[in-house]
Amino acid sequence: MAYKSDIEIAREAKKRPIQEIGEKLGIGSDDLLPYGHDKAKVSQSFIDSVQGNDNGKLILVTAINPTPAGEGKTTTTVGLGDGLNRIGKKAAICIREASLGPCFGMKGGAAGGGYAQVVPMEEMNLHFTGDFHAITSAHNLLSAMIDNHIYWGNECEIDLRRVVWRRVLDMNDRALRDIVTSLGGVANGFPRQAGFDITVASEVMACLCLALNLKDLQKRLGDIIVAYRRDRSPVYARDIKADGAMTVLLKDAMQPNLVQTLENNPAFVHGGPFANIAHGCNSVTATTTALKLADYVVTEAGFGADLGAEKFMNIKCRKAGIAPSVVVCVATVRAMKMNGGVAKADLGTENVEAVRKGCPNLGRHIENLKSFGVPVVVAINHFVTDTDAEIEAVKDFVKEHGSEAILSQHWEFGSKGSEALARRVAEIADADAANFAPIYGDDMPLMQKIETIAKRIYRADEVLADKKIRTQLQEWEAQGYGNLPICMAKTQYSFTTDPNRRGAPTGHSVPVREVRLAAGAGFVVVICGEIMTMPGLPRVPSAEMIMLNDSGQIEGLF
Amino acid sequence: MAYKSDIEIAREAKKRPIQEIGEKLGIGSDDLLPYGHDKAKVSQSFIDSVQGNDNGKLILVTAINPTPAGEGKTTTTVGLGDGLNRIGKKAAICIREASLGPCFGMKGGAAGGGYAQVVPMEEMNLHFTGDFHAITSAHNLLSAMIDNHIYWGNECEIDLRRVVWRRVLDMNDRALRDIVTSLGGVANGFPRQAGFDITVASEVMACLCLALNLKDLQKRLGDIIVAYRRDRSPVYARDIKADGAMTVLLKDAMQPNLVQTLENNPAFVHGGPFANIAHGCNSVTATTTALKLADYVVTEAGFGADLGAEKFMNIKCRKAGIAPSVVVCVATVRAMKMNGGVAKADLGTENVEAVRKGCPNLGRHIENLKSFGVPVVVAINHFVTDTDAEIEAVKDFVKEHGSEAILSQHWEFGSKGSEALARRVAEIADADAANFAPIYGDDMPLMQKIETIAKRIYRADEVLADKKIRTQLQEWEAQGYGNLPICMAKTQYSFTTDPNRRGAPTGHSVPVREVRLAAGAGFVVVICGEIMTMPGLPRVPSAEMIMLNDSGQIEGLF
Repeated sequence: MAYKSDIEIAREAKKRPIQEIGEKLGIGSDDLLPYGHDKAKVSQSFIDSVQGNDNGKLILVTAINPTPAGEGKTTTTVGLGDGLNRIGKKAAICIREASLGPCFGMKGGAAGGGYAQVVPMEEMNLHFTGDFHAITSAHNLLSAMIDNHIYWGNECEIDLRRVVWRRVLDMNDRALRDIVTSLGGVANGFPRQAGFDITVASEVMACLCLALNLKDLQKRLGDIIVAYRRDRSPVYARDIKADGAMTVLLKDAMQPNLVQTLENNPAFVHGGPFANIAHGCNSVTATTTALKLADYVVTEAGFGADLGAEKFMNIKCRKAGIAPSVVVCVATVRAMKMNGGVAKADLGTENVEAVRKGCPNLGRHIENLKSFGVPVVVAINHFVTDTDAEIEAVKDFVKEHGSEAILSQHWEFGSKGSEALARRVAEIADADAANFAPIYGDDMPLMQKIETIAKRIYRADEVLADKKIRTQLQEWEAQGYGNLPICMAKTQYSFTTDPNRRGAPTGHSVPVREVRLAAGAGFVVVICGEIMTMPGLPRVPSAEMIMLNDSGQIEGLF
Repeated sequence: MAYKSDIEIAREAKKRPIQEIGEKLGIGSDDLLPYGHDKAKVSQSFIDSVQGNDNGKLILVTAINPTPAGEGKTTTTVGLGDGLNRIGKKAAICIREASLGPCFGMKGGAAGGGYAQVVPMEEMNLHFTGDFHAITSAHNLLSAMIDNHIYWGNECEIDLRRVVWRRVLDMNDRALRDIVTSLGGVANGFPRQAGFDITVASEVMACLCLALNLKDLQKRLGDIIVAYRRDRSPVYARDIKADGAMTVLLKDAMQPNLVQTLENNPAFVHGGPFANIAHGCNSVTATTTALKLADYVVTEAGFGADLGAEKFMNIKCRKAGIAPSVVVCVATVRAMKMNGGVAKADLGTENVEAVRKGCPNLGRHIENLKSFGVPVVVAINHFVTDTDAEIEAVKDFVKEHGSEAILSQHWEFGSKGSEALARRVAEIADADAANFAPIYGDDMPLMQKIETIAKRIYRADEVLADKKIRTQLQEWEAQGYGNLPICMAKTQYSFTTDPNRRGAPTGHSVPVREVRLAAGAGFVVVICGEIMTMPGLPRVPSAEMIMLNDSGQIEGLF
């Protein structure tokens, strides 16, 4: 049997006008700001008007540690949302926006796959509604204002060597990682070392995604530390008077975007912070708005549950005052096999033993997720090569771990394939069994918060951090930043900091290389490995193949 | 009498849904891609469908050399468009989009003024429909692909010292004018000197604005020269295989934007190339589309007539195969007085003698414009301090020069104030008196084209160009670029290259500093003075005052 490609399926989508999608959630067409006929922003005034509504149930979709076999977290998020709608529930999904730059490197990120996709796919991978461009502009306005401030007399006494605010572009451009600016003479300012990150790595992105409203956004932007003086005291974006204009640039970007699934169900696609140096979830405004409008909101977090779900719980839920009613952990037979030692080329062959051997990675995630006080369901995202025996092996394992696994075939059959999963998830959510709490309190010292995550989630024996790092954390505590949550930046491929250690390892150490204060976003970034904040293009970038065909369709993007 | 500010008037605008504005031109709502409720793009398929229509009459609005007194070229363009609609004509206007970056430096550029404005003002000065962001992305994708090409082996043998393609941002950031990239080691590429320009200075902008359609756009993008080899042979964007992906990024940006005037008449706002190193007019697609839909299309060109109108005629009209039926040259009593030697502070005092003394600047422009074979009308853009005697002085002068001047009070009264101008302009356009031709042929050698402009338009005695420049021009002719038109880059404040020489000077020389080949845009840029392609921010940038007020309105942008 031949399967259609994602793009073929997406192109056959019978999209409804976005106003019809809005109607399903009670959003009138005046409150939808359309971008073309299939995308819209939900107006701020409408969002304000629904704040009195009760909240729907929040469902988090997370996954095992990613493997090259693929897990299909977004696909499952979309499939579950469609499944809930199919069984008569009023459900919406909330996912992140895609970054433009990387689409020109490797083949681009579709939103879901098979018959569980969000459309319009092309636009979502290109400019979409311009949110990332607005973030790029706001970020770089601050950058320009910093150098301009120094140029015109440096009233804030910024130490030229300690400007920590870089510039951003939504482009994979390694040449901009490390640059020297302001060459060419007096009129161009004071030369200094600088650099660009990719837009999704901007703290402005994290601020936008965590801000409760525009006022809160402006406060966060003002709180951003842009540089230090010679006495090491911080200079804030507010000191440079950039926060007002940055907020103006982000005014529209703060409004969540509404699109639709292939089955014409509402999907909010908004925000896309890095899942390493930031928290990796869609925006708080999108999620909280969706909760006011739908009875069930399915959302996802970046990477595996050890990074993504941990940050979703400890950062996003804490800050936004929301809590998941149930967590769905996505696993695949193929990924279990890879965890069990099978090479990618051999994944098509039945190997129940390897599945069993790979399951402990999943088991660890289930335990971890439960430790947040939330019920956990495993969704086995069905691949056509999976055998019944392999599927049963996963189900048995999960059952032994006090949870349940449900096979879901949304990729192949859309909501028809995810109906069973949707029924069970709704049942659990309706039972109100969750008793959510972050795994550490605000008051815990920063170092202890890091140790809590490392020991309880990663199951490490210890955290290795030198004196310089510990002193830095204490300094921040003295400055009043001790109550911030931790944003871990480590490899997504393992519970450890070594990407090659699959399964459920124990006895390892977590070495902390560097800590960074994101005072605007409101977290302390703890870097435990090499983190690339400006990717490069590969030898043959996909950009070389991307073009319009004779019918005006985009080729090569997927 | 107290007058309302532009922003107060704009906020009181009774905007109609953009679909209603589209209807006036026969654009159905399916063919309008809305961006919010008051902005839309006209779909490519609709544009294709109207190619069989007859063309309306094209009316160019240009002006005397700008003075600090202000001329109101855009205001007059808007006022004339509204006036034509008022007298029952089906008219549309075509103007340029505003650049975002400069709005955060000096107070931002409104689209028109008084009761002759285009709305929504705020959006048009911020992200609008994202066109400039798309241009920034496409430009920087090419930049990244060039360095990536070099990084992975440099198959095209680009001479690292001769990469001529820079990067762009829509931001005033002097620190980026002159930088060194790819520092930090092997993984970041080969260090080299580079820099950023502001987005409007991008050749991609010029390509987009001159392209006839998407296919032509891709050809132009492919023709862009990005670097040279050691043997001085050019490397094109096509050699780097960037043209397809750049076109994909610009697919939506190519579609003209429709908005409305305060009087709810259609306004196309599309494209915004620099008026110095590029041709400074709105896009060919917008103008040619408007001509298919309206009976009268009022458009404008950047700077004064010596630069803007000259390039409109010799570059845009030539390339697009269009011709103006009549040219309106905007003048003000105040500007005449400044040309006559009055200081800005004294402009409020009647001074008929100074008006007369300043008129020769206007007279020169009238003569020049007529030399293109088009009828010329002078619009006196009324200021409230103008006296009857001063206005009469201008009218008399213009009459003596075989043309006519009409007082227009659109700023104060909207279309009621521009009715007389509209009637006369329509009359002339309907008379089909124009016999348009560019002032030089394609075949003329490049140096001779430059001399033709310098002598016939600037009334210079000679062009000064050293051997290096002459040789360069000859080399381009040998390479097949001899048929390109010339894009002059000189000060807009004078017919000469000295910004302080007002009036109608003669006997001067035009020194050519540099020539650049814009092979994609399709012109040779001739630089006759210092041209700033990346502005800086002032000591107190307006960004410091820009913020949202408590009602969510933008303050400080205007």
